[in-house]
Amino acid sequence: MKTVAVLGASGYTGAELVRLIAAHGDMRVAALAADRRAGAAMGDVFPHLAHLDLPRLVRIDDIDFAGIDLAFCALPHATTQEVVTALPRDLKIVDLSADFRLRDAAAYETWYGRPHSAMHLQEEAVYGLTEFYRDAIRATRLCAGTGCNAATGLYAVLPLLEAGLIDPDEIVIDLKTGVSGAGRSAKEAMLFAEVSEGFHAYNVCAHRHLAEFEQEFSKAAGRPTTCAFVAHLVPQNRGILATVYVKGEPEAVHGALAERYADEPFLDVLPYGSVPHTRHVRGSNLCRIGVAADRRPGRAVIVSTLDNLMKGASGQAVQNANLMLGLPETAGLTAAPLFP
Amino acid sequence: MKTVAVLGASGYTGAELVRLIAAHGDMRVAALAADRRAGAAMGDVFPHLAHLDLPRLVRIDDIDFAGIDLAFCALPHATTQEVVTALPRDLKIVDLSADFRLRDAAAYETWYGRPHSAMHLQEEAVYGLTEFYRDAIRATRLCAGTGCNAATGLYAVLPLLEAGLIDPDEIVIDLKTGVSGAGRSAKEAMLFAEVSEGFHAYNVCAHRHLAEFEQEFSKAAGRPTTCAFVAHLVPQNRGILATVYVKGEPEAVHGALAERYADEPFLDVLPYGSVPHTRHVRGSNLCRIGVAADRRPGRAVIVSTLDNLMKGASGQAVQNANLMLGLPETAGLTAAPLFP
Amino acid sequence: MKTVAVLGASGYTGAELVRLIAAHGDMRVAALAADRRAGAAMGDVFPHLAHLDLPRLVRIDDIDFAGIDLAFCALPHATTQEVVTALPRDLKIVDLSADFRLRDAAAYETWYGRPHSAMHLQEEAVYGLTEFYRDAIRATRLCAGTGCNAATGLYAVLPLLEAGLIDPDEIVIDLKTGVSGAGRSAKEAMLFAEVSEGFHAYNVCAHRHLAEFEQEFSKAAGRPTTCAFVAHLVPQNRGILATVYVKGEPEAVHGALAERYADEPFLDVLPYGSVPHTRHVRGSNLCRIGVAADRRPGRAVIVSTLDNLMKGASGQAVQNANLMLGLPETAGLTAAPLFP
Amino acid sequence: MKTVAVLGASGYTGAELVRLIAAHGDMRVAALAADRRAGAAMGDVFPHLAHLDLPRLVRIDDIDFAGIDLAFCALPHATTQEVVTALPRDLKIVDLSADFRLRDAAAYETWYGRPHSAMHLQEEAVYGLTEFYRDAIRATRLCAGTGCNAATGLYAVLPLLEAGLIDPDEIVIDLKTGVSGAGRSAKEAMLFAEVSEGFHAYNVCAHRHLAEFEQEFSKAAGRPTTCAFVAHLVPQNRGILATVYVKGEPEAVHGALAERYADEPFLDVLPYGSVPHTRHVRGSNLCRIGVAADRRPGRAVIVSTLDNLMKGASGQAVQNANLMLGLPETAGLTAAPLFP
Repeated sequence: MKTVAVLGASGYTGAELVRLIAAHGDMRVAALAADRRAGAAMGDVFPHLAHLDLPRLVRIDDIDFAGIDLAFCALPHATTQEVVTALPRDLKIVDLSADFRLRDAAAYETWYGRPHSAMHLQEEAVYGLTEFYRDAIRATRLCAGTGCNAATGLYAVLPLLEAGLIDPDEIVIDLKTGVSGAGRSAKEAMLFAEVSEGFHAYNVCAHRHLAEFEQEFSKAAGRPTTCAFVAHLVPQNRGILATVYVKGEPEAVHGALAERYADEPFLDVLPYGSVPHTRHVRGSNLCRIGVAADRRPGRAVIVSTLDNLMKGASGQAVQNANLMLGLPETAGLTAAPLFP
Repeated sequence: MKTVAVLGASGYTGAELVRLIAAHGDMRVAALAADRRAGAAMGDVFPHLAHLDLPRLVRIDDIDFAGIDLAFCALPHATTQEVVTALPRDLKIVDLSADFRLRDAAAYETWYGRPHSAMHLQEEAVYGLTEFYRDAIRATRLCAGTGCNAATGLYAVLPLLEAGLIDPDEIVIDLKTGVSGAGRSAKEAMLFAEVSEGFHAYNVCAHRHLAEFEQEFSKAAGRPTTCAFVAHLVPQNRGILATVYVKGEPEAVHGALAERYADEPFLDVLPYGSVPHTRHVRGSNLCRIGVAADRRPGRAVIVSTLDNLMKGASGQAVQNANLMLGLPETAGLTAAPLFP
Repeated sequence: MKTVAVLGASGYTGAELVRLIAAHGDMRVAALAADRRAGAAMGDVFPHLAHLDLPRLVRIDDIDFAGIDLAFCALPHATTQEVVTALPRDLKIVDLSADFRLRDAAAYETWYGRPHSAMHLQEEAVYGLTEFYRDAIRATRLCAGTGCNAATGLYAVLPLLEAGLIDPDEIVIDLKTGVSGAGRSAKEAMLFAEVSEGFHAYNVCAHRHLAEFEQEFSKAAGRPTTCAFVAHLVPQNRGILATVYVKGEPEAVHGALAERYADEPFLDVLPYGSVPHTRHVRGSNLCRIGVAADRRPGRAVIVSTLDNLMKGASGQAVQNANLMLGLPETAGLTAAPLFP
Repeated sequence: MKTVAVLGASGYTGAELVRLIAAHGDMRVAALAADRRAGAAMGDVFPHLAHLDLPRLVRIDDIDFAGIDLAFCALPHATTQEVVTALPRDLKIVDLSADFRLRDAAAYETWYGRPHSAMHLQEEAVYGLTEFYRDAIRATRLCAGTGCNAATGLYAVLPLLEAGLIDPDEIVIDLKTGVSGAGRSAKEAMLFAEVSEGFHAYNVCAHRHLAEFEQEFSKAAGRPTTCAFVAHLVPQNRGILATVYVKGEPEAVHGALAERYADEPFLDVLPYGSVPHTRHVRGSNLCRIGVAADRRPGRAVIVSTLDNLMKGASGQAVQNANLMLGLPETAGLTAAPLFP
């Protein structure tokens, strides 16, 4: 039985980690931290977890990390760098923030508007897209969880760039995301009355997850690569769906994805011509992908979907923690989606 | 490992049974029946379950029940009587329809508009409100799952009538239910455009689950008892919440419920004055109950909530099947709620 | 053409006033105030109104009230008292806050937790439940809009108490309200992810609108009267629906309501046994009411619904302003509901 | 005062026509037809309209068209051809079906799977995209309303093709639509439980509205032109939003759209870099358009949104009817959007 701490337990990804670990046979929550809610019972912050036997929330500084095998960091961007710097050197860390995703310091500064304060840690960090960095994740001390939108698009595109099947200059990612990805902090724009019964694009072609697309696409293509990327906010809690338009033969595209993910436990490529719904992955760690032909010959449409709190954040984090701790990779992650 | 069949696998409660059994260490799906969809893969009917290794849908008549320990019947009302009559006598059955809930033939005919065609089976049937019929369920061959609305109200009221703490003539049950309880058949009234962004009462004081309230309330009170009962349809998928107004001392009411359910694994009585949300039980087998004082002295308000597809239907069914099969009662049912 | 100012134009009721006045043949917006957003265009605060020709937002202190016939005050509770005190004595005012609803200073202090600072204005104020205070509203300088929940319940109950048809001690008001009534300020509890796909009761039997029920019920019954009142939050934007349980003959109850409202332009009593949906009033100034028999003889259930931003707030305000300005009472308010 | 008939009054576009005409100073509903609901009051079919003074529903054959100036046909595809063929030759008709949209008989047969049975009427028909066919609509007897999705995309793209500002081979239309566009007929796929809390693409690159894009794009570009077009279903009632990716200078794209629509009463081009929400047009006849730069130089993203039941169907129909009847073009259509 491995013991873990969850730092940032008062946010949605923190609660999702607790939910997953509660059903995980080989992992146990030893500490929960949330500085602003220190002293509260987890059940007061998240009443849906009130029946679980959980430690009370504390400040990070009050945790004794001796005897803790791994810490999940579900903290806001920027503050994470400081917190992780102060953690014991022998503690394994799965970070869910954006702080260690970008290998290039200049890119970090461009997209996040401030210099990186812990580049020595960045150098240790492995990008947490499990299916593409599995061996490195197994070996690392610090795993940097991907952006939830980034993961959704990367799963659809990376194998195609690696195989040279598509034109790197002709990638359009039209992505739709549920609301929970915006977190639990109170913002007018995320009020029910502002978000329900409507739909809109935001940060058009300026979303920070573009930095991850550029980093990983360029690596896969072997040359600088970018894309069109527009994120939209959908009136639903969970689920991201990316509709990706590429220049490449659709059946070859489908074949390459099906082959690449054939043995992956959480990647599911549908039969050619079928496309998945977000509701077919809700609450699960699955990423489901479909491919169809564009109306224009020699082009394809790929639809990729995952649950942003699961495969896009906390589920991915547990999967990576399993690898880092030598546990079975799928432990605690096999629950089927919840529908309806 | 016990083997089970799910009859009526193309409806929401059927799919929920399959989801639960897929994560159940001691139970395995041996057959799935859905007459109108016979021949289809379960993943075509419910794509969220497509990744599971499941038998193909067949007609009930094509199932070989030898070697099957228990059948879950998730069929429409009325047809269930016929189907169950034709099943092998030594097969254990957990029924999710309304067909075997009412012990009185006349009451059945009054509420369901037709005479009961299998009263000999009704006599064997045990009402599936686990916490009140546990020993009988353990011993029975045929367990009749409760109405989902009925269960929500009964958990709030039965211990109070049993203890003589409230006036049986002054019970008002104002109940709100999500949409999935109406099932998957295509009806204009259940279209998204008809149900979303709105709220309404239906079957005002004429809902069939009143029959269950009358049966169980009268038994607990020791004399004929009815109540006001209005159900409302909420624009959400899962969750029932009953707001129950009773004449009785609120602190005594709270105390009686807390004591009655203290050792129950799935019943959670909140601290006095707190009330639960439907989202605090979604996807779980929990029923959460809160009590507060009415503005009028000597009266109390009880709020009771459960997930209609779980503790209100398929979760309850698995719990009862566990008892009937000699398995641990909570096996397969301990997943925490999914929020948000 | 009458000229009006809207004070508090950056909230939902403010925007709704602007929407209504834009379609009102006899009323024109001369000034819009919102202290925190002063300087902004209304279209930046509410993009759905960006195409209208509207004055820019200013601070209240910067408005020249000469030439303005009436001010709508859509400001937060408590600050309203100060603001109204400082307005010109000859300016007509329709207030949408809670500040002038309670005629009794002690009741105000009890429910709002602070002494009233403008009781001299309170004495002039007329309660804005149009159909019960029409003549006084026509004559007043200061009309205090009702609580949106209060209006929904009062329409169902007041005629029955006035006619002595129901027992004043046996009134249960189970009310469900959409989210927009909570306003536009950023609160965690009103985030989409917290409110959608769920349902809950709040302020159980302690909601401030109880003060209005007690004031008006006691007046109508001729003796101190209270009730059970539980409000619930529904995952929808607009609409309040109250299910009211009373002790009285259901057909007599229906007859009394139908007769009382027969000539009212915005009150619509459905045929006996029918009940309205919130979606049948959305976006309109209608209040629709239905009556059915309780299961228990001699008792009735009344269902009353209105759009909280319309008949519950801004529509009511325009209706009262029409009366105070000598305009046709229904001017600007006859749009049919928007469905779906 | 012009008199009109609504054929197909029991569907959502029929109800929306009635709602609009009820507030139209120069138009009056003389007859309402709905064959399957003949004999019913409109208020029984659409209770939100129950307070209006409307004729009872009849069969189309029972309408006396003498004295009726114009008929709105809101009937299903295919049956419309027969119905319109049988109508009096001197009756003006605004059709909301797909039956007269495609000028090419072969295209009709390809996309709708059956030969056209009334090509003589097709030859008279004018495509109802008001801003591009205004003079012809004024003069025609038969106006064929556009597809709701088609209109949303066409407004974004047509001026750019006409001006030669974009590459006709590089158009991607990623469109999201609310549920009401699917109509009121009971289908499993449109149930609340199937549609809410999720998102999916449908008819990927095979949606029938592609035929309209191809017809109008080819005309504007002066050569055969198609595009990638994927429609997605959003869990909301009203609103279509198209995100359109084009190869062209973004500022020039913005300038061309702003100039083209500068004098149009219902087309609103936002400042460069801003994009609209569906909720900024809900319930109104507005189409709002924004333009931003793609991450890739020399490319632009256009976001276009309208209410599918208004500018996408019934609002457009009334606008065209106004032109055909010599009424002011905006009569009955100036209500501001309803938000929230």
